[in-house]
Amino acid sequence: MVQRVVVIGAGPSGLTSIKACLDEGLQPTCFESSHDIGGLWRFKEKPEPGRANIYQSVVINSSKEMMSFSDFPPPAQLPNNMHHSQVLLYLRLYAQAFKLLQHIHLQTTVLSVKPTPDFAVTGQWEVETERGQGQRKTHVFDAVMVCTGHFTQPHLPLTDFTGIESFEGRCFHSWEYRSAEGMQGKRVLVIGIGNSGGDIAVDISRVAEKVYLSTRSGAWVVSRVGQGGLPADLVGTSRLHVMMQKLVPSWFNRMLEKKLNEAFDHTLYGLKPKHRFFAQIPVVNDDLPARIISGRVQVKPNVKEFCGSSVVFVDESVINEVDVVVFATGYNYSFPFLPSALQAKCGYRLRLYKHVFPPGLTRPTLVVVGFIHGLGAINPLAEMQARWATRVFKGLSALPSEETMVEEIQKDTTGMHQRFSCSDRNPLQVDYIPYLDSLAEQVGARPNIPWLLMKDPRLALQVLLGPCTPYQYRLEGPGRWAGARQAILTQWQRVVQPFRTRVVPQPETRPSSRWSIVVVFSGVTLLCCICYNKPLFRSPH
Amino acid sequence: MVQRVVVIGAGPSGLTSIKACLDEGLQPTCFESSHDIGGLWRFKEKPEPGRANIYQSVVINSSKEMMSFSDFPPPAQLPNNMHHSQVLLYLRLYAQAFKLLQHIHLQTTVLSVKPTPDFAVTGQWEVETERGQGQRKTHVFDAVMVCTGHFTQPHLPLTDFTGIESFEGRCFHSWEYRSAEGMQGKRVLVIGIGNSGGDIAVDISRVAEKVYLSTRSGAWVVSRVGQGGLPADLVGTSRLHVMMQKLVPSWFNRMLEKKLNEAFDHTLYGLKPKHRFFAQIPVVNDDLPARIISGRVQVKPNVKEFCGSSVVFVDESVINEVDVVVFATGYNYSFPFLPSALQAKCGYRLRLYKHVFPPGLTRPTLVVVGFIHGLGAINPLAEMQARWATRVFKGLSALPSEETMVEEIQKDTTGMHQRFSCSDRNPLQVDYIPYLDSLAEQVGARPNIPWLLMKDPRLALQVLLGPCTPYQYRLEGPGRWAGARQAILTQWQRVVQPFRTRVVPQPETRPSSRWSIVVVFSGVTLLCCICYNKPLFRSPH
Repeated sequence: MVQRVVVIGAGPSGLTSIKACLDEGLQPTCFESSHDIGGLWRFKEKPEPGRANIYQSVVINSSKEMMSFSDFPPPAQLPNNMHHSQVLLYLRLYAQAFKLLQHIHLQTTVLSVKPTPDFAVTGQWEVETERGQGQRKTHVFDAVMVCTGHFTQPHLPLTDFTGIESFEGRCFHSWEYRSAEGMQGKRVLVIGIGNSGGDIAVDISRVAEKVYLSTRSGAWVVSRVGQGGLPADLVGTSRLHVMMQKLVPSWFNRMLEKKLNEAFDHTLYGLKPKHRFFAQIPVVNDDLPARIISGRVQVKPNVKEFCGSSVVFVDESVINEVDVVVFATGYNYSFPFLPSALQAKCGYRLRLYKHVFPPGLTRPTLVVVGFIHGLGAINPLAEMQARWATRVFKGLSALPSEETMVEEIQKDTTGMHQRFSCSDRNPLQVDYIPYLDSLAEQVGARPNIPWLLMKDPRLALQVLLGPCTPYQYRLEGPGRWAGARQAILTQWQRVVQPFRTRVVPQPETRPSSRWSIVVVFSGVTLLCCICYNKPLFRSPH
Repeated sequence: MVQRVVVIGAGPSGLTSIKACLDEGLQPTCFESSHDIGGLWRFKEKPEPGRANIYQSVVINSSKEMMSFSDFPPPAQLPNNMHHSQVLLYLRLYAQAFKLLQHIHLQTTVLSVKPTPDFAVTGQWEVETERGQGQRKTHVFDAVMVCTGHFTQPHLPLTDFTGIESFEGRCFHSWEYRSAEGMQGKRVLVIGIGNSGGDIAVDISRVAEKVYLSTRSGAWVVSRVGQGGLPADLVGTSRLHVMMQKLVPSWFNRMLEKKLNEAFDHTLYGLKPKHRFFAQIPVVNDDLPARIISGRVQVKPNVKEFCGSSVVFVDESVINEVDVVVFATGYNYSFPFLPSALQAKCGYRLRLYKHVFPPGLTRPTLVVVGFIHGLGAINPLAEMQARWATRVFKGLSALPSEETMVEEIQKDTTGMHQRFSCSDRNPLQVDYIPYLDSLAEQVGARPNIPWLLMKDPRLALQVLLGPCTPYQYRLEGPGRWAGARQAILTQWQRVVQPFRTRVVPQPETRPSSRWSIVVVFSGVTLLCCICYNKPLFRSPH
C-alpha cells in the first residue's frame, strides 16, 4: 500500500503533486534542488545550469482563469495574462493555502531513483539525495512523482550551422537571455520562431539597430488579446470548440487561419507555415506584426551558413555585420536520475501511458507529471495527471495490462504523428480538453454535461459554451470542491476585475431575449448528446 | 515681384518649402538654427531646448506611401512604418535629390522678422539672424515661409496638480524622455494619453515594476497594422472613405468605433472617450492593449492630487510609492521672432487663412507652413501648403479680400469647434483629403476624377478607391510630375516589397471577374459625380 511519496521538483507540477498526495491521504516528501519553489517561474538574475530560466519580460501565454489550479481561482485583481512575478505569487499563494511548504526540502538534489531489490513485491523506490555539498542520504519511498519539468537543457545545434566557428560576435542560446540590456545599437539575428524566439526578437528590437528572425518553417502567430479584448485562450478554449473541431476539423482549421490572416496575412508577413493551425503550438506574440511592419524585426528564412560576421540564408540573401546571434532552438531533455529503461521513447515522445505511467513496471508506483504539451496551460494538465496518479497509487483507479498500455501508447503516437507537425522539439502531443477529459474519466471527475443540462442548466451552458476552465473538473466525483460551481459562475467577473482601473460609464443594455436562450439551450443539449455519445437521461454516477 | 524667399527651419516643412520655391523659380534661403536638417526627425541624444525632441523608440504613425512627398516616392525596401532614423534618411534623400542643401544655412537662428518700412509697396521683410555667438546680420527678403514646427515648447501644467511639490521622485515632461533606461523596477505614472503618453507608457512598462497611465478623457486607440496586416492608414485613407463620411457621417463613425471595439472593447479597457472617432486624432499604438491585458500598464483616471509619493485619482483610488511621473501633457507654441499681430488666434487655432496666410497683411508675403493637424501625415499637408504659398507669392494664385479671408477663418473655426473635440492641446483642425483638395484646387492640381474615369479608368479607380497617396496631386496642373501615374500604379508594390524578406510560395489565385470590375466602375463613376458635383463629361482644364 502506497503511503510515502517522493515528489521531485517544486515547480507548478511538483506543488500540485504534493497537493494531490495530501488530498488522497498520502505522505508527500518533495525534494527541490534550488533554494525556492516556483521552478520555471522563479526568475533567476543569472541562468542556473540544469534549471529552466525565463527572461525579464516574460508574460504568461495563458490567461489566469485558464492556467489556474482547479480548486484555487486566482485573485480577481491579478491581470489576465500575468507577468512571471505574478505567476510566482500565485504559486506561493497556492502553496500557502494548502500548506504545501512544510513538505518541501529545499536545496536537496535527487541523485538517483532506483527500484528497491524487492520492488516486485513492495513497488518501492530507493532515492539518493544530496543536500548542500556532499551530504548524501538514501531514502525509501512507496512511490515517485517526477516533476522536473522541461526547458532545462538548451539544445544548441552549432554543428548544423556551417561556418559558425568563423562568427566572432556574441552567440548564445535563448536559455541564457535575460533582457535587451547590452543590445543597444546592435545587429542581432535570432534563430527559431518558437515562443522564446518571437519574444526575444521583439524585446531586442526595441533597442537594437536591427533584428533578423530566421525561421525554417514559419508559424501561426496569435495574440493574447482576443476578440473584443478578452483573453484569446478564454474565448477560444471551450467544449463547443472541441465539438466543432471534431465535427468539421478542416473547416475549423480554415476558419481560424482566416481569422489570423485577417489580423495580418501570414503569407505577406513571411510567416505562413506549411502546417495547419491545430498541427502545432502557435507562437503567442502580441507585438510581432507591428515590429515587422515597422521593419524593426525582419523575418528571414533558414540560415545556410555563416561567413565571419555575415550570414547567408537559404534564399541566398546575405546580411552583414551581425553582432549577436541568439539560438532560440529549443530544448533537449533527460532525467539523469532515472533508470534508462524508464526514459524510453516512442516516436517523438516519452514512452508513457497517457504521458504519465511507464508501462513496463510491475507496480505502477512511478509517474512523470507535467511533461506534456497541449494547446492549453500546463497547470491544469499537470494537476489532472497528479490527481490520476495518486488515485492509481492508492489502488482506487486501475491501469490496464502492460500490453494494452503499450498498444495504446503506440496508437496514440501514430495518431499524434499523423495529426500534429511533430519533431523532437516541436512537441504538440495532445488535444487539450479531450486529454483532460480522458484523465478526468479515470479519476471519476469528468463533468457529465447532459446530466448537468437537466440539473443545473445555467452552469451547464457555462461548462459547455463558456471557457473550459479547470474548475469544471471539481464539480463532481472524487476531489469534488464545493466552490467549483461558484468559481465557474463568477469567472467572468474575475476576468473583468483587473480592467476596472478607470471605469467608463456604460449605457444600459437590454437583457438578452429569453427565447434565444431556450433555442440555444435546446440546440446545445442535442449537439452535446451527439458528440459525447451519451443518452439524455442518466444519473451522473 | 517676389524673388528672394526666406525659409525658417529645415525640418520636413522647411525642406518642402525650399523645393516649392525652386519649382516656382524663386530663390530660397533657409536658416536652420541647429547643425543639421530633419527637425523633429533628427534624434538628439540630449533634449535641445526650443527644439522638438523624439525618443529612441519612435516609429512614425503614418505609413511610408502616405507620408511621402508627392514627387518623391520612398525607396521600396524601406519598411512601411519607418523608424525615426529611416524617416530622417528619407528626408536626406529628398534634400539630396532636389539639391536643397545648398540653400540651407545651418546653425543660423532667426531672431526677428519685421516688415520693412516700405512693406506696403514692396511686401518685403527684414530678417535678423545670428550665427554662432553674436554674429548678427540683417537681411531683406521678398517673402517669408515660417517652418519652425510644433512640439518645441513643453506644456508642464504643474500648478494644476495639487501637492505636486510634495512629490520627491523624478518628474519630467515627455519632451525630455529618451528611453526606458533607468526605469528598471520603478513605479511610474504617465499623465496624458496622447501619442507620446501611450508610447512612453508602453516603452517603460517593459522594464518598470508597474506603469500607470492616467487619462482625463480617454482615447480611441488604433494600430499601425490594419486589416490583413496592411498599413492601417493606407487602407483607411481613401476618397471613397471621404464620400462615405460625407454621405453617412454618423454611421461611418459608428462603424469605425465598432471595428476598434472588436479589436478590444474600449469601455472594458477603460479607454473609451466621450468624443466620436473622427472628432479627435486617435492614439496610434500597437502594444497598448497587450500591455493592459497583462497588467504591465494600468489605465487610471485623472489625477486629483499628490501626497508625497502617493497619488490620488479623481475616483479616490490611490497608488503608492510612485518613483517617477512623466507629464505627457502636450505642447505650447509661439513664434518669438514674429510680430505679435501675426500670432493672433481664432478659437484654438492660429488666425491664418486656410492655416497658411495671416489675413491682415497688405501684401501676402508671409506664410506659416506645416502648422496644421489633420488625420494624416504632415509632409503632404506642408508640401501642398508650400506649393500654394509660392504660387501666391508669384501672383499665379490670388487670395480673396481680407474681409472674405477673415470671414472664412471665422466660419472654419466655428465648424472646427463644432465637429472636432478641440482644445489648446487637442488640435484636430481639418479633414485630411478635403483640406488637401481645397489647397490643390487653388494650385490647380486637384485631380479631376470624373474626367480621369473616362480617360484612364485604371488610374482613376486607384485614385478613387485606393489610398489617397500624395502622388495624386502631381497628375495634372502646375507642378505636374510625369512619374505620378506610375507612382500610383506601383504604390502597392512598394508596400509589399519590405515584407518580402522570407518569401512564402503562394497558391495561384483566379483573376477577378471582369464583370465585377465593370459593375464597380459604373457604380463609382456615378457616386463620385454625385459627391464631387461634377458633370460626367468635361475637359480637365
